[in-house]
Amino acid sequence: MKTYLECIPCFFRQALEASQIAGTSIVKQKEILDKVAVEIPLFSLAATPPEMGRLVHDIVRKITKKKDPYLKVKAKSNKLALGIKNDLKNKVRRSKNRLLTAVELAIAGNIIDYGVKNTLDVNKELNKILSKEEKIIKKEDPALFQFKQFKSKLSKAKTILYLGDNVGETVFDSILLEEIKEMYPEKEIEYAVRAAPIINDALAEDAYKAGLDQYAKIITSGVDAPGTILSLCSQTFLKKFNNADLIISKGQGNYEALSQESGPIFFLFMAKCPVIAKHLNCDIGNIILKKI
Amino acid sequence: MKTYLECIPCFFRQALEASQIAGTSIVKQKEILDKVAVEIPLFSLAATPPEMGRLVHDIVRKITKKKDPYLKVKAKSNKLALGIKNDLKNKVRRSKNRLLTAVELAIAGNIIDYGVKNTLDVNKELNKILSKEEKIIKKEDPALFQFKQFKSKLSKAKTILYLGDNVGETVFDSILLEEIKEMYPEKEIEYAVRAAPIINDALAEDAYKAGLDQYAKIITSGVDAPGTILSLCSQTFLKKFNNADLIISKGQGNYEALSQESGPIFFLFMAKCPVIAKHLNCDIGNIILKKI
Repeated sequence: MKTYLECIPCFFRQALEASQIAGTSIVKQKEILDKVAVEIPLFSLAATPPEMGRLVHDIVRKITKKKDPYLKVKAKSNKLALGIKNDLKNKVRRSKNRLLTAVELAIAGNIIDYGVKNTLDVNKELNKILSKEEKIIKKEDPALFQFKQFKSKLSKAKTILYLGDNVGETVFDSILLEEIKEMYPEKEIEYAVRAAPIINDALAEDAYKAGLDQYAKIITSGVDAPGTILSLCSQTFLKKFNNADLIISKGQGNYEALSQESGPIFFLFMAKCPVIAKHLNCDIGNIILKKI
Repeated sequence: MKTYLECIPCFFRQALEASQIAGTSIVKQKEILDKVAVEIPLFSLAATPPEMGRLVHDIVRKITKKKDPYLKVKAKSNKLALGIKNDLKNKVRRSKNRLLTAVELAIAGNIIDYGVKNTLDVNKELNKILSKEEKIIKKEDPALFQFKQFKSKLSKAKTILYLGDNVGETVFDSILLEEIKEMYPEKEIEYAVRAAPIINDALAEDAYKAGLDQYAKIITSGVDAPGTILSLCSQTFLKKFNNADLIISKGQGNYEALSQESGPIFFLFMAKCPVIAKHLNCDIGNIILKKI
């Protein structure tokens, strides 16, 4: 997805929020916004939003001298998600359509996001999704929730590449991967995380904490951006990306980075900002399951 | 009021909204945002938000080559407000406390604003204010609605300088000035407008359209900013500003520009953004009547 003009004010909001999370002074916060301002005229709208997100957070890290400003935030998200892991498992076990419930939960977990403005309440959103409110899943537009196609593709795929997104959301991913492994123990699954700290995105250690290594091999994309920007990925990762029978891409950032690519990709995310809602013709808060 | 860091993303939002209202191309819109970005590192947080607002809208006018991008918007606001003028007059006539109702209406008129994000509904807000909901007038904090002090100062003042704000709001101002003139026909009132087009702020022609010349002498501040920035005002205006017995300052922009000055100023406005709400310790949508 290209960058819309409406993303520009949001880059500054993100930079400011990240500076504040990093706990730096007002003077340093202004210095960060000034540096972001210098990047704006150099930034092409043909680039994707995560490319600018990468620059913004690189500036924040350099000026605050904090390698991982979201460390505490991530620990909190991990704790929150691990605390409800058994409830999530039970929801799937009690469901009449276990795969569907596991998919919905995996998407619901995408609300744990500190890139997009985090005004959504995790528990409230979870309940809304599980009560399957009409307005959460846009039933009038089947192109935005392609579960049948996903189920069919999943049944045939031998190799699955799962692109992770945020910390905490990883726990929700583990619920889906557990279900997939129970249905198809023979599938070869790899779970890709970012290569370096970026916002609250999951790193290898977070994937292990969520227990994802029980169902998948943990790999990194080689990328330090809040989205799988292929031009920045490692050769090893790209080989896997090009050869996987099914790619499950989690989160808005991965959608923004990959929506113009091709391949057997299904995007699972929640539409969390007005720009993406307009781009997809849906509402903020809608859950999306969309083939490329 | 100084500029807060949270104002910076908002300057870009305002620039984008203004470019879109001016009806210019995406390429020109990006050019405008790039020019605003160049100004950010040069802009001191010790300056007031309307100083940056002035720069932003100057950039928009220069790049779009439109001297008054808000011309249509202003005509619409004038029509809307003139259409309900008689209803407003009747509300005052039927009131048991006519001056209070006229003051409340004048503040209510401040919701017609295209600088701050305009998500408020004029009629809905009017009704809320006239039903005097607790949450609109912050009764627990008498410092934010100083009607008694205002009434007392008004009764003693021989000369009144009224600083206008937006087009349409001018009609609401005329209701208050009519009431004041009926109570005190001898008072000398001057109504100050901006000297050149800036957002949807009132110019002399708008004051005449609202019928304000029946109650006050129409003057200009000499300023082309969305707030009365004293360093930019004409000498003629400054003399009036320094000698008036009472200054009625309308709108958030005038508050932002003048809150650190001294003098017999009462600010009448609606708190319309999170920054000002935090600054005043009130909620967005609260109506404010505050002595300097």
